[in-house]
Amino acid sequence: MIGVLGGMGPLATLDFFQKVLLSTPVVTELDHVPLLIQSDPRLPSRPDAILAGGPSPLPDLMRARDRLIASGATALAMPCNTAHYWYDDLAKDCPVPFLSILDACMDELPLVCAPGAKVGLLGTRATLATHLFDNRLVAQGYVPVLPSEEVLSQLVLPAIAGVKAGHTAEVAPLLERAVDILLSQGASAVILACTEIPVALDALASPLRQHCIDSTGALARQCVAWWGRPGA
Amino acid sequence: MIGVLGGMGPLATLDFFQKVLLSTPVVTELDHVPLLIQSDPRLPSRPDAILAGGPSPLPDLMRARDRLIASGATALAMPCNTAHYWYDDLAKDCPVPFLSILDACMDELPLVCAPGAKVGLLGTRATLATHLFDNRLVAQGYVPVLPSEEVLSQLVLPAIAGVKAGHTAEVAPLLERAVDILLSQGASAVILACTEIPVALDALASPLRQHCIDSTGALARQCVAWWGRPGA
Repeated sequence: MIGVLGGMGPLATLDFFQKVLLSTPVVTELDHVPLLIQSDPRLPSRPDAILAGGPSPLPDLMRARDRLIASGATALAMPCNTAHYWYDDLAKDCPVPFLSILDACMDELPLVCAPGAKVGLLGTRATLATHLFDNRLVAQGYVPVLPSEEVLSQLVLPAIAGVKAGHTAEVAPLLERAVDILLSQGASAVILACTEIPVALDALASPLRQHCIDSTGALARQCVAWWGRPGA
Repeated sequence: MIGVLGGMGPLATLDFFQKVLLSTPVVTELDHVPLLIQSDPRLPSRPDAILAGGPSPLPDLMRARDRLIASGATALAMPCNTAHYWYDDLAKDCPVPFLSILDACMDELPLVCAPGAKVGLLGTRATLATHLFDNRLVAQGYVPVLPSEEVLSQLVLPAIAGVKAGHTAEVAPLLERAVDILLSQGASAVILACTEIPVALDALASPLRQHCIDSTGALARQCVAWWGRPGA
């Protein structure tokens, strides 16, 4: 059973659950990946902790991690990019594999563009401030293209807040514009490094999605592959 | 946190999760109901246990129930009508409230038709064999209208199997015909007493849904109301 640290936000966790189910080749329902999904939005704000010295969500995440393992989880996943700031702490001494959303994205990136290419990055201000993704892109030979302050504050952040408030389809055009701007700046692909972003772009069935690495979908596919690996 | 005994089947559990989120009035994501969802399809077959003397899923359900409570669930729900055959065993001595899908349906029925009315019932052969729903309808003054053997075996059961195998939209017309037949037999409403059925009818955006009591949606709304009750 794969344990899921979710609720950051709940709609993104629902999207992750759906993508796990739709990514699984099934003949009968018995072929589906067993999941234990915590969707608890009551964690301390990840952006506040990273950007403003607010209380850390790490103690709650550790408790949730350990409860999921005690309940039978044999691997873990966390469909929230910002929370991966605490990934090393969560994975350290973890008695089961903790599948990383960064690894999942980086594994899919070569399917869209080769090292040397420019790769756009959309995420929360907190995720961008951690440099988790752009450092990793540079390490693997890609050239990160970050959103300007204007794109971030006028398009990306209001859209993420809109999804979290349930206004999914309404805010999707903001994200289409943000993706389009990064592509026009030479990006060959754009990593949707916030799990709220694909929720909105999927709702609009945006054609720009073909240029995007969907962090939620990538992690879901990673989970399905892990569960279906030989010897599992 | 509400614990969810799911995976019977996984797509129905996803539908339940979505209906909880969409039924919740939210300003921010913090307003969402905290959930701990087990989606594990590996339970012994409920129909086999009820109809053919197969192994009972009750021991596994009890273990899952107790794990969810140990992990912090302060109420439980199980989005599977057939599994409510074991509801009394699961609710007995349960230290937290166990919200019943039958109660949820019966609470919504008067919004569609008054006692005295004929009410159609669609579900698995096992759910119909338990008489859980028709006995309850009679007790509350309604007249049950059951599907004929032909409707059950030609339309309802193939459609349920189709959803479980992931062919959701394809099988929806079978269910539309089944609902239509019960309505033509004088039913004022039809209870969709199998959580696979609304998955298919929703995929088709069927206009017949307005005559239906959606057991998944009813249980989801019960959960949202329970979480939002005064003093919660």
